[in-house]
Amino acid sequence: MKNYAVIFGGISYEHEISIISAITLKDVIKKDKIFIFCDKKRDFYLIAKENMKAKYFSSGEYKKSEQIYLKYSGFYKKALLKDKKIEFDLAINLIHGKDGEDGLLSSLLEFFDINYIGPRVEASVVSFNKEFTKLYASSKNVPTLSYQVINKFDKQKPKPKYPVVIKPLRLGSSIGLSVAKNKDEFEYALDVAFEYDNDVLIEQFYDNIKEYNLAGIKSKDGFLYSIVEEPKKESILDFDKKYLDFSRSTGANKAELPSNIISQIYSAFESIYEPLFEGAIIRCDFFMLDEKVYLNEINPVPGSLANYLFDDFNLVLDKISSNLPKKRKINIDYKYINSINAVKCK
Amino acid sequence: MKNYAVIFGGISYEHEISIISAITLKDVIKKDKIFIFCDKKRDFYLIAKENMKAKYFSSGEYKKSEQIYLKYSGFYKKALLKDKKIEFDLAINLIHGKDGEDGLLSSLLEFFDINYIGPRVEASVVSFNKEFTKLYASSKNVPTLSYQVINKFDKQKPKPKYPVVIKPLRLGSSIGLSVAKNKDEFEYALDVAFEYDNDVLIEQFYDNIKEYNLAGIKSKDGFLYSIVEEPKKESILDFDKKYLDFSRSTGANKAELPSNIISQIYSAFESIYEPLFEGAIIRCDFFMLDEKVYLNEINPVPGSLANYLFDDFNLVLDKISSNLPKKRKINIDYKYINSINAVKCK
Repeated sequence: MKNYAVIFGGISYEHEISIISAITLKDVIKKDKIFIFCDKKRDFYLIAKENMKAKYFSSGEYKKSEQIYLKYSGFYKKALLKDKKIEFDLAINLIHGKDGEDGLLSSLLEFFDINYIGPRVEASVVSFNKEFTKLYASSKNVPTLSYQVINKFDKQKPKPKYPVVIKPLRLGSSIGLSVAKNKDEFEYALDVAFEYDNDVLIEQFYDNIKEYNLAGIKSKDGFLYSIVEEPKKESILDFDKKYLDFSRSTGANKAELPSNIISQIYSAFESIYEPLFEGAIIRCDFFMLDEKVYLNEINPVPGSLANYLFDDFNLVLDKISSNLPKKRKINIDYKYINSINAVKCK
Repeated sequence: MKNYAVIFGGISYEHEISIISAITLKDVIKKDKIFIFCDKKRDFYLIAKENMKAKYFSSGEYKKSEQIYLKYSGFYKKALLKDKKIEFDLAINLIHGKDGEDGLLSSLLEFFDINYIGPRVEASVVSFNKEFTKLYASSKNVPTLSYQVINKFDKQKPKPKYPVVIKPLRLGSSIGLSVAKNKDEFEYALDVAFEYDNDVLIEQFYDNIKEYNLAGIKSKDGFLYSIVEEPKKESILDFDKKYLDFSRSTGANKAELPSNIISQIYSAFESIYEPLFEGAIIRCDFFMLDEKVYLNEINPVPGSLANYLFDDFNLVLDKISSNLPKKRKINIDYKYINSINAVKCK
């Protein structure tokens, strides 16, 4: 029986949806769990289950909860004589966007040697930066849409063939995303996107594009997949609508697809997942255009861990919990310094 | 006047050379500085200047130094009433290899909001993984040698055209690196490299290849470069010889090169540096083959910060200290949760 510590919050545009996500998982995860909230000052609090309500956080009431601290091998409560360790077997990274998906939390958990479910540092950086996602996908022979990146300080602005989609290079969800059909809209869209990131990604916009999502993990027994979902959308999901996604525990819309498309989607997922994303429950969002599947983005900490896409989410948690990436032990023995000192003393 | 906190040690195959590197910088850096050691349990110690000697660490004597703790906005000494903050303006990341160059220390410093000289998280991940370096370079139109990556668990081993160089995908220095001229050497080299990483990079070995190193930074006044060095080498530097590099403060061997090659090297450096490596003093190692320059690797925390390559290393420190990447402020205001609650209460 595993005990989980669900870590949520963080300094991120998705801070609030991380709270919603954690509240959703409270009822979804059957095994024992505790909740650790990272607030906007990056202080950690241990939150009692009965306090897992949105208002407890938005009102600031959470500060009455016990503050805890990261140290080697765990989170600790301060105590007069010896700090008291918070007991759990595995952390679950449930911080969406910055802090959770950009490698910061993964690094902290690695540095302090805490076992966790979630993307490792490399996987985080590759999925958080949309250009790195494309470069990585191409090295795995997974197609993505062609693109252009521009920096806020570039002297020349590109003249794209409209319509185009404009996205901040590094954000999750659809924050700062726009579609531009002409030069005016394009310039406005750039201004919006540059509010969120100094780098912006531009892609062709296709009206007839289809979207499909697939979540999954790899365990000792091979890949375990969710259904392939065809998300409901109105041209492109805006942020408010995507927000709702993070509180879902039912109601996914299963895509009706021919087997050759399904197998393209599975095969792309496997190429992306292995071995970089081991240890994480990820959702890959795909595009389909003229019967060809393209990777759109990788969500290494999807809203409420995409639980609503799986037949048995608790089985997914069990499987991944016993298949986390192994750590490599580095032995520090001062052989080199000792050998120099030995020579000096001759 | 800036005060620096030099952070060194870490859990890394290069733990000992980080110590040597820090001892070297003790005399090189003119401004006030303090030294923070990260030991093999990832505990931090504040080391007095007079104790900055290799044996102090290899003997374990460093444990007599004051232990300090990472918290929001700095390192702290424990105290009965209120923990005491260790005063400094800027941290310098001087941990080589794992912990320092893989994004862990950068993440910690970002998370706890401490200003630092060194690669940011993305830059670390891109330079630490040799395949990511190549993908990134190609996106910047900087040539690299062609390569192949194999994983320890791949069923099929490649049959390369010998001679080839075999390197662990993720280590710095030349640890685990071999040249193989035939199948037996190749299989042995793979075994050696897989000791260090589950992924191994294979490149063609060229006997007539030249090596050139260039260190630099970008500040408000543009790029500031070191000399282009032609490192002394015997076919390929082995680890012991490279070790010595980390304690250097003089004696670089300036390359005699025609201006078209120098400008290829500068231009490649600029493409790589900007904007990903801003905030770091990096050394790029280049190859030259038939008058064409290729990026070999990016060292985002080079041995003793490559001080021996610069005319005036203290000027470099000054310039970069006042040109660190700006942080983007994210406002967390609970607008979304409040708006939901408002609707619910109607």
